Amino acid sequence: MTTLSDKRPSHGRTDHPATSRAERTDHGPTPRVDVPLLEQVVLGRWADVRREAREFLKDPRMHRIEGLSMAEHRARVLEQVKILATEGDVLRAFPTALGGADDHGGSLARFEEVVTADPSLQIKAGVQWGLFASAILHLGTQEHHERLLPAAMSVDVPGAFAMTETGHGSDVASIGTTATYDAATQEFVIHTPFRAAWKDYLGNAALHGTAAVVFAQLITAGPGEEPVNHGVHAFYVPLRDPATGELLPGVSGEDDGLKGGLNGIDNGRLCFDQVRVPRHDLLNRYGDVAPDGTYTSPITSPGRRFFTMLSTLVQGRVSLDGAAVNTSKLALIIAITYANERRQFSAASETDEVVLLDYAEHQRRLLPRLAQTYAGAFAHERLLEAFVGVFSGADDTDESRQDLETIAAALKPASTWHALDTLQAAREACGGAGFLTENRLVSLRADLDVYATFEGDNTVLMQLVAKRLLADYSKEFKDIDASGVARYVAGRAADAALHRTPLLRVVQTLADGGNRRRSAGQLRETETQRELLTDRVETMVAEVATALRPAMKGSREEAARLFNEHQHALIECARAHADLLQWEAFTAGLEKVGDPGTRRVLTWLRDVFGLSIIERNLAWYLINGRLSAGRARTVTSYIDRLLVRLRPHAQDLVDAFAYGPEHVRAAIATGAERERQDEARAHYRKQRATGEEPRKEKSSVKPAVKAVRQAPSPA
Amino acid sequence: MTTLSDKRPSHGRTDHPATSRAERTDHGPTPRVDVPLLEQVVLGRWADVRREAREFLKDPRMHRIEGLSMAEHRARVLEQVKILATEGDVLRAFPTALGGADDHGGSLARFEEVVTADPSLQIKAGVQWGLFASAILHLGTQEHHERLLPAAMSVDVPGAFAMTETGHGSDVASIGTTATYDAATQEFVIHTPFRAAWKDYLGNAALHGTAAVVFAQLITAGPGEEPVNHGVHAFYVPLRDPATGELLPGVSGEDDGLKGGLNGIDNGRLCFDQVRVPRHDLLNRYGDVAPDGTYTSPITSPGRRFFTMLSTLVQGRVSLDGAAVNTSKLALIIAITYANERRQFSAASETDEVVLLDYAEHQRRLLPRLAQTYAGAFAHERLLEAFVGVFSGADDTDESRQDLETIAAALKPASTWHALDTLQAAREACGGAGFLTENRLVSLRADLDVYATFEGDNTVLMQLVAKRLLADYSKEFKDIDASGVARYVAGRAADAALHRTPLLRVVQTLADGGNRRRSAGQLRETETQRELLTDRVETMVAEVATALRPAMKGSREEAARLFNEHQHALIECARAHADLLQWEAFTAGLEKVGDPGTRRVLTWLRDVFGLSIIERNLAWYLINGRLSAGRARTVTSYIDRLLVRLRPHAQDLVDAFAYGPEHVRAAIATGAERERQDEARAHYRKQRATGEEPRKEKSSVKPAVKAVRQAPSPA
Repeated sequence: MTTLSDKRPSHGRTDHPATSRAERTDHGPTPRVDVPLLEQVVLGRWADVRREAREFLKDPRMHRIEGLSMAEHRARVLEQVKILATEGDVLRAFPTALGGADDHGGSLARFEEVVTADPSLQIKAGVQWGLFASAILHLGTQEHHERLLPAAMSVDVPGAFAMTETGHGSDVASIGTTATYDAATQEFVIHTPFRAAWKDYLGNAALHGTAAVVFAQLITAGPGEEPVNHGVHAFYVPLRDPATGELLPGVSGEDDGLKGGLNGIDNGRLCFDQVRVPRHDLLNRYGDVAPDGTYTSPITSPGRRFFTMLSTLVQGRVSLDGAAVNTSKLALIIAITYANERRQFSAASETDEVVLLDYAEHQRRLLPRLAQTYAGAFAHERLLEAFVGVFSGADDTDESRQDLETIAAALKPASTWHALDTLQAAREACGGAGFLTENRLVSLRADLDVYATFEGDNTVLMQLVAKRLLADYSKEFKDIDASGVARYVAGRAADAALHRTPLLRVVQTLADGGNRRRSAGQLRETETQRELLTDRVETMVAEVATALRPAMKGSREEAARLFNEHQHALIECARAHADLLQWEAFTAGLEKVGDPGTRRVLTWLRDVFGLSIIERNLAWYLINGRLSAGRARTVTSYIDRLLVRLRPHAQDLVDAFAYGPEHVRAAIATGAERERQDEARAHYRKQRATGEEPRKEKSSVKPAVKAVRQAPSPA
Repeated sequence: MTTLSDKRPSHGRTDHPATSRAERTDHGPTPRVDVPLLEQVVLGRWADVRREAREFLKDPRMHRIEGLSMAEHRARVLEQVKILATEGDVLRAFPTALGGADDHGGSLARFEEVVTADPSLQIKAGVQWGLFASAILHLGTQEHHERLLPAAMSVDVPGAFAMTETGHGSDVASIGTTATYDAATQEFVIHTPFRAAWKDYLGNAALHGTAAVVFAQLITAGPGEEPVNHGVHAFYVPLRDPATGELLPGVSGEDDGLKGGLNGIDNGRLCFDQVRVPRHDLLNRYGDVAPDGTYTSPITSPGRRFFTMLSTLVQGRVSLDGAAVNTSKLALIIAITYANERRQFSAASETDEVVLLDYAEHQRRLLPRLAQTYAGAFAHERLLEAFVGVFSGADDTDESRQDLETIAAALKPASTWHALDTLQAAREACGGAGFLTENRLVSLRADLDVYATFEGDNTVLMQLVAKRLLADYSKEFKDIDASGVARYVAGRAADAALHRTPLLRVVQTLADGGNRRRSAGQLRETETQRELLTDRVETMVAEVATALRPAMKGSREEAARLFNEHQHALIECARAHADLLQWEAFTAGLEKVGDPGTRRVLTWLRDVFGLSIIERNLAWYLINGRLSAGRARTVTSYIDRLLVRLRPHAQDLVDAFAYGPEHVRAAIATGAERERQDEARAHYRKQRATGEEPRKEKSSVKPAVKAVRQAPSPA
């Protein structure tokens, strides 16, 4: 496929040797990035699937048209979903017997690329295949697959995934909708008992859905018994007459109306007034009701059953992680391409203005985010592999499922927040041009906004990760008693003066006396970064675990109070863990790069990522005696040096994302700015050459001072 | 006027005594906030004007209607601007002789409130009166005022402010448009020499503007002389035939089209092909051309002349600062009201779910931002007073003008970035509901986005501030030689071990041995916070100044290189300075609060603001020996304690912003969520009372562990 790198002149690769002489002396001539090779590494295991998907997504029929009304946008996206169904190879995850390919990894890899066409299309497709049809597949049984899946897969039945309610989003276990079994008619009565129990924010609910998978509290009574609430189960419920589009009797709804983004999706609310569905429309893989009302389940613990049912949702989080990383790539392609062409202010010369990316602050705004985007891409590849292990059945154990859920819960917040941050930094780095819709950044940001709170609110997911970290920690110590743990923690983390980890060596070697260059050299070592990042996670988890110990013995109120008191610390643990996951993935990714020059540049980028995490948490390292003050200073100055080294490779590093102009679709990333700059410079050059340039009114300001004064100033 | 506090039941004031027992023992009964009194303090010197403006802005004719097409929105905003002209008392800043009131402060205070109706309306009004008419007023002379101002003031002539070009935004001095004087016809020839010199992003340019103030390089030749470029000057240029709306001969244009927000404004591009305007349409207050082409100016230095002309633009920055603070207020009213009503997860009890704002992390997300919003409000009041001093002529000296510009350049970035951050935090804190347009946050964020880069790009403004800090610093030391400065800096800041400021006392007293409560007590002291914040600014400025010294002697290239190397440090200086400005304003604001309970709560809020700044820069304080590790730990734990104390007052603190439901207009901030929660809880209460509640399937999970497990979890 054609990528940006084929079409545009090289930016800064040879004509912007921004490395200073000192850098060059230290490190030899600046290496070159082998862009096609790096492309292949970043595309990863599903490179072919991704390339095919990107080729397909060049089709203008799939692209967002800006400025459509909400109604027009919704209609267009529905049409696009139908095109996807027939031409887009979107059924790979479904059983071969039903026309799929049982290819879970390829399916998600493809799906993640759809975000480049229109995030609304990605999410509408996700609702149809990833949630609605997928619930039938994973929560239903053979009979459901045969009866219900084909129409869901073909979009003959557009479907809603009716789980969230106005009153309950993150806490699914507490939803209010009930499904009460009536043995007399062998039906379930689906009912919304109060306003807060309306299903809400559902794609396909406002307009297009003719059926839904509805989650409700299953209430049934065995013969002669009192009714029991067996917890949340899923039911297949018709919503609309496909011919007329009218809601069926007992079903009412509301349109969620305009949203901050994703307006190509018809999100809406649904309310059920004693709606009856036949007994066999319970998706009964994990819980069934016999004609007489007797409840049975292959999973005896209601808690475990609930988590098992919900665990099929993990693919949503996995794919959002991938889509968010891809969106960050687009943002950086746009901002870095523009920053390599746009000029503003002449600092060093009378006539030549400075290219934006030559400004240190501009590098600070964009390059660490580029580093994190690479980290996110490598980490996502690992997540996808874990996902395939579980969903293909190759490695489907309780433990691997839990691992998968924890990694997804750690990475989805990291990458979705990063995408929002990167889109905004890119938009501001492009100034007023960044605010124009034609340059793509603002719409992408608007659409991606909700990625931070749907499919698991990021803050809630982080707590899930923290709880897993705590659980692992207590498992590690299950054979020693509480006072033993306390002693361990105290010896390890409670007092910096007593700190005795392998890191001590590094800290001491690099105490304030050490020279800066050598100190930076050690920060660059993979093992040093690993120890610093790992140690932080472990120490913080141990501290919180110790603080939470009394919760195991005290009252429920006391436990809740203690937990709340440490909620922020728990979230910080999870964040540190996510950082470490991304860093480890990036580090492992370096091994895949055979070309020495490319690997060297990518290692600098990895170092920027690792050291940026350390810089962000520098106070923690200082307070806990892991870094001396002198060492801590080095972190920032070494990042600055790395940014200077990376600057000439910035364009290569975004070109290696392998998106073409048909994916980027931003007016300022087409070379237009370079043309404008060249024209303007030619104009002045000609004026000077011909003597037509009017003399400037004589300035009384001295040149040296002026150089400083004329560097970026708003006036 | 009616404010939210009159209409809604009290939130958390008495029924959520979230202060722990320990807090209560330490500090006596929790104080009460006198909301009407605090309202008056926050409304400040222009309270009456603000109240009047808010009353007027309740009018639904002035409100944004969501979901309009771009064309409809533009048309509506134009109509609203015309209503403002006749009914909105928007001419206060203009001369009394022309129907104004010479009231610069009241005018801006009113204008800042317009953002609550629709940011597009605020900015369209800003273009008309704050830029277009204001340029005629400040850059023109008597004849221009009489001939051109009345139609600009009445919007009979909607006007564009044609300064920015596609190729030059921040660097106005380098714009490409030329105005060449032709003595033969006594006309200026306005010309766009190349594509990058098109005027761009101009409100009123795409559709409505019939004239513009155009900035161009003034080129003229005195009799028998060579042409000289006298730099940027402003010209009054007709654009369109008012009758037909057609562009006049020689003028061409483009529509900027859709933007990330502010789509009620018709931004566009303009190109001039040898367009002739009469000599007297040069706005000639600061530079004039005689019929024979001779140039004269009351300001001999071209640099100073340029900055003087542009300094009239400062009012835009002042008013954006105010509007951004007001928008943060709206965001927090919405998020905190919702967080006081919304419940999710039952941690401490079997039946009662927890109100969001009782979660420690939710407090961390919202309350420090509330603190910064108060700081921003107090700081803005001071900025407005400085503005009035200069623009009323009461304190119009070179120095006061420079101070005004520096304060505006520091505060506008702080408040506009803060508004974006707060809107996003509020939107995420409201979950999916926050993403619905009916809840206002997403549209406000989309509109406010560009506030960070227009009227002075924030990053560029910060450099302006830094340069002023450097200039002041070098002035301070002008009488000692360079080595003296170096010695001073070294003794003061270069080595923590040599550090000898008054702070040393505080640091030593609070070394690791000290007890936590006492340590926190000292952090709470106003003088401690002031010293910590001031010392950081001074030390960082001294360090950068020393590092930049060689720039004064070296070549232009060398100076530019050095400056660039320290660009990030310079911006950090400016940020630290802005923090200090806001903190000082907040601290001074406390003095205006007579009621002891209110003052106490507000002091906690000020402490959260001050300590959050210190927490954000904790690594700096540690590296530079200003805080010991033990002390640094206290900063975070003390913030946590303050948040618990503040939590019961959160609603009062946003109610005191004195916005009514007509300004807030968010469905989730109307009490609707409380009604839904009450209904749901009543439903379950009744079920339990009547024995209708189905028994839950027996759980095998032990209660204490469950309390922890059930605290926020995504499943």
